[in-house]
Amino acid sequence: MVDLNCDIGEGFGVWRITDDDALLAVVSSANIACGFHAGDPGTMRRACVTAVEHGVAIGAQVSYRDLAGFGRRFIDVPPADLVDDVLYQLSALDGLARVSGGRMSYVKPHGALYNAIVTNEAQAAAVVEAVRRFDPSLAVLGLPGSRWLALSAEAGLATVPEAFADRAYTPSGTLVSRREPGSVVSDPSLVAERAVRFATEGTVVAVDGSVVPAPARSICVHSDTPGALALVEAVRDALAAVGVEVASFR
Amino acid sequence: MVDLNCDIGEGFGVWRITDDDALLAVVSSANIACGFHAGDPGTMRRACVTAVEHGVAIGAQVSYRDLAGFGRRFIDVPPADLVDDVLYQLSALDGLARVSGGRMSYVKPHGALYNAIVTNEAQAAAVVEAVRRFDPSLAVLGLPGSRWLALSAEAGLATVPEAFADRAYTPSGTLVSRREPGSVVSDPSLVAERAVRFATEGTVVAVDGSVVPAPARSICVHSDTPGALALVEAVRDALAAVGVEVASFR
Amino acid sequence: MVDLNCDIGEGFGVWRITDDDALLAVVSSANIACGFHAGDPGTMRRACVTAVEHGVAIGAQVSYRDLAGFGRRFIDVPPADLVDDVLYQLSALDGLARVSGGRMSYVKPHGALYNAIVTNEAQAAAVVEAVRRFDPSLAVLGLPGSRWLALSAEAGLATVPEAFADRAYTPSGTLVSRREPGSVVSDPSLVAERAVRFATEGTVVAVDGSVVPAPARSICVHSDTPGALALVEAVRDALAAVGVEVASFR
Amino acid sequence: MVDLNCDIGEGFGVWRITDDDALLAVVSSANIACGFHAGDPGTMRRACVTAVEHGVAIGAQVSYRDLAGFGRRFIDVPPADLVDDVLYQLSALDGLARVSGGRMSYVKPHGALYNAIVTNEAQAAAVVEAVRRFDPSLAVLGLPGSRWLALSAEAGLATVPEAFADRAYTPSGTLVSRREPGSVVSDPSLVAERAVRFATEGTVVAVDGSVVPAPARSICVHSDTPGALALVEAVRDALAAVGVEVASFR
Repeated sequence: MVDLNCDIGEGFGVWRITDDDALLAVVSSANIACGFHAGDPGTMRRACVTAVEHGVAIGAQVSYRDLAGFGRRFIDVPPADLVDDVLYQLSALDGLARVSGGRMSYVKPHGALYNAIVTNEAQAAAVVEAVRRFDPSLAVLGLPGSRWLALSAEAGLATVPEAFADRAYTPSGTLVSRREPGSVVSDPSLVAERAVRFATEGTVVAVDGSVVPAPARSICVHSDTPGALALVEAVRDALAAVGVEVASFR
Repeated sequence: MVDLNCDIGEGFGVWRITDDDALLAVVSSANIACGFHAGDPGTMRRACVTAVEHGVAIGAQVSYRDLAGFGRRFIDVPPADLVDDVLYQLSALDGLARVSGGRMSYVKPHGALYNAIVTNEAQAAAVVEAVRRFDPSLAVLGLPGSRWLALSAEAGLATVPEAFADRAYTPSGTLVSRREPGSVVSDPSLVAERAVRFATEGTVVAVDGSVVPAPARSICVHSDTPGALALVEAVRDALAAVGVEVASFR
Repeated sequence: MVDLNCDIGEGFGVWRITDDDALLAVVSSANIACGFHAGDPGTMRRACVTAVEHGVAIGAQVSYRDLAGFGRRFIDVPPADLVDDVLYQLSALDGLARVSGGRMSYVKPHGALYNAIVTNEAQAAAVVEAVRRFDPSLAVLGLPGSRWLALSAEAGLATVPEAFADRAYTPSGTLVSRREPGSVVSDPSLVAERAVRFATEGTVVAVDGSVVPAPARSICVHSDTPGALALVEAVRDALAAVGVEVASFR
Repeated sequence: MVDLNCDIGEGFGVWRITDDDALLAVVSSANIACGFHAGDPGTMRRACVTAVEHGVAIGAQVSYRDLAGFGRRFIDVPPADLVDDVLYQLSALDGLARVSGGRMSYVKPHGALYNAIVTNEAQAAAVVEAVRRFDPSLAVLGLPGSRWLALSAEAGLATVPEAFADRAYTPSGTLVSRREPGSVVSDPSLVAERAVRFATEGTVVAVDGSVVPAPARSICVHSDTPGALALVEAVRDALAAVGVEVASFR
């Protein structure tokens, strides 16, 4: 059994990244943008409604405040301000999930914030502090070995390590930067093969060919990877073929 | 007994309108900006914390999305989108109030939205719908005679008519537009006198000298009126002098 | 000879509406978004560069400040503020056009502003004032019969009436609101047929079947109409077939 | 003779930082915010008009896009995007300066961008590239010894080293971070004394008491330092008392 998570609701106003409704019919966990890097209120609420219809877990995809950069640029936010920015986003999604008949059950930081808190102690602690103060029963998703997961565990939060089926890994087990060529894997069969390896062996083949541990209880496919829906479906089918059930970690 | 409400948290980032802490020591209800016309997450949370310390009721000052115009410009938002915009703002403040040890207990629309829903049926219904869906135990503040209060009452919400001690009234009982001269009253003794009249007689003297009914269970002093703190203190003192206690309507 | 104009650069950050590069190979005038309803600086500059490469005229698609609503919601901006908002947008695009080796040569307001200044005298005058003060040699595009074109002409600006090949018309010659069904025409052969009628007869068939005057020196196809590229190509081909050359009005 | 520069136009919408009109009567150069960290179009244009009236030089205070953080947080903007962001801001101010009867004559980056390009080679090169492409006759203000000034000089731009009369210096000649206590000097006589030392000796007394070279052709007083107007007036008076004239470097 493994969780399959995807970014959802990453449009803003008239703009769309992908087909949320189609993805929500396939994944088990929806990382819903909360308005800071993407996600207007209507998009957020509709994503919650559809997630509830499909029994998909609702998670908060919290981010730096950066619509222009889609949250992909590190911002040196003072930690005290970051606590409040995350509290605001958690609050917003939590309310919209409740009016949609669901509940927010986990947190997965987005983009540059996700990457920063792999190592940035102060920002990682700030996000943990926000989650703990908002609702200590929330689970947190993140990169295995990250300060984010370590500090979350210390704070008593349930931690869920994840792996990326559509991103290249360095030999040290971190993600290859999006600014580098080959950072994104977009061939469905390769993505599916990687997902199966994550779920059954807990490893990934890095860019240099070495096999690296990647202990994952959740597998992520980015919804903005070209052909995301086909990738997610390929992953789900390949997992089913080897007897792995896709289900939320909650 | 009468409620005294004031707009709070209307800064953004480094910018400030007034001294929130000082005002929160005097008023009984705080209309806290929710991020759409003003109000960054830190400002919002600190306002909640201070409100809780002083036993001040926390209300959501929901608005059109318009930082550049401070929510003072009518925006023809489709009603369905307005529902979601209000739900988002209610959610954000509710969460920040809870982590601050308090609870959001009422809603008062801001600026141009406040004025629009005096008569704009579709937008008034949208804001009512958002409040009802978010939490039907929330009270709503507004102008006596407005569609906003009428539709709220029909929806089963507790309604609180308010009066403005620092704004000029037309003979028909509506506010003189801020774009017109003389729309704001800023002399403390005049403001206090008007507050006493609201609380004891339920009337106001309009710009043409006529006495107009103004049945108010809450009195508002705008925090961005010059010398707002002195005005609020003058109102509180004048009310005390005639034996009227200032207390939240909740 | 007729001009063919299209909205260009209406993405923001990672978000895209359409394929600007492909459209710029077909149209003769590019209405480039200036950052208020869409259009980040990189998108704007790249659009200018591509327009220059294809000899396409560069126009400013000025708008209300409303990314969340894509400029499609009327905002009651005080006219004095609207003058400055338009001056800012004209300035921004003019500079980016110059560094791209081109020149901004006309102005076409966007969305709700476009519609408002058909009749809203004060806002129409504000936009005219901004154009006149920025550069009175700029031409202005707009709806035939609009206050916008009339006031522009009074101010000595060159006016260019346009017609919409992909929008339904009312019997009175205005556009059917996007909020109503059937407001957008998306069949390429119908769109092309309408364009030919505009160019050769100066008329359009309204929703009630009546033939309405539509004197146009420029024909617009919206880039966010589904299949916009195919529509624009169909228009260009159909015009060529009847011997009408597509060329900028400048 | 020395230049005296100040940040101007750093409000947004209803929000104000300081009294621009009063400051513009005293300084010789105005670093006008361009809309990314502060500065709405109306504020920008009015600042230009007043600068022209007083014969004050108009400079572009370009910034990261960060209203919520007032441009005081480092953002890891990819250099190519930073070029476009700066081009947009230069364009906007240039246009508003022209319609106000003036000309933009120099560039001074703001806040975190100012600090970043002291050492960040890629971002410094991006800002230089933007200035050079927009108008190579623009002068650039910055910290002596910064990569920003060095790369500007290599690109053939006129460089103006500046010193800060109201900021504490480290023994190595950089500014003490605003996040540390004692980073801001707010006593008028101390600020004036430091200004005189800059202008007559080209040095500053660092936080450890050591005397550090600070070769400045322009002296900055921050307009958001408490009592900024009194500081600027004290500086101007003290400079006059020792026979140093305040005049733009242009």
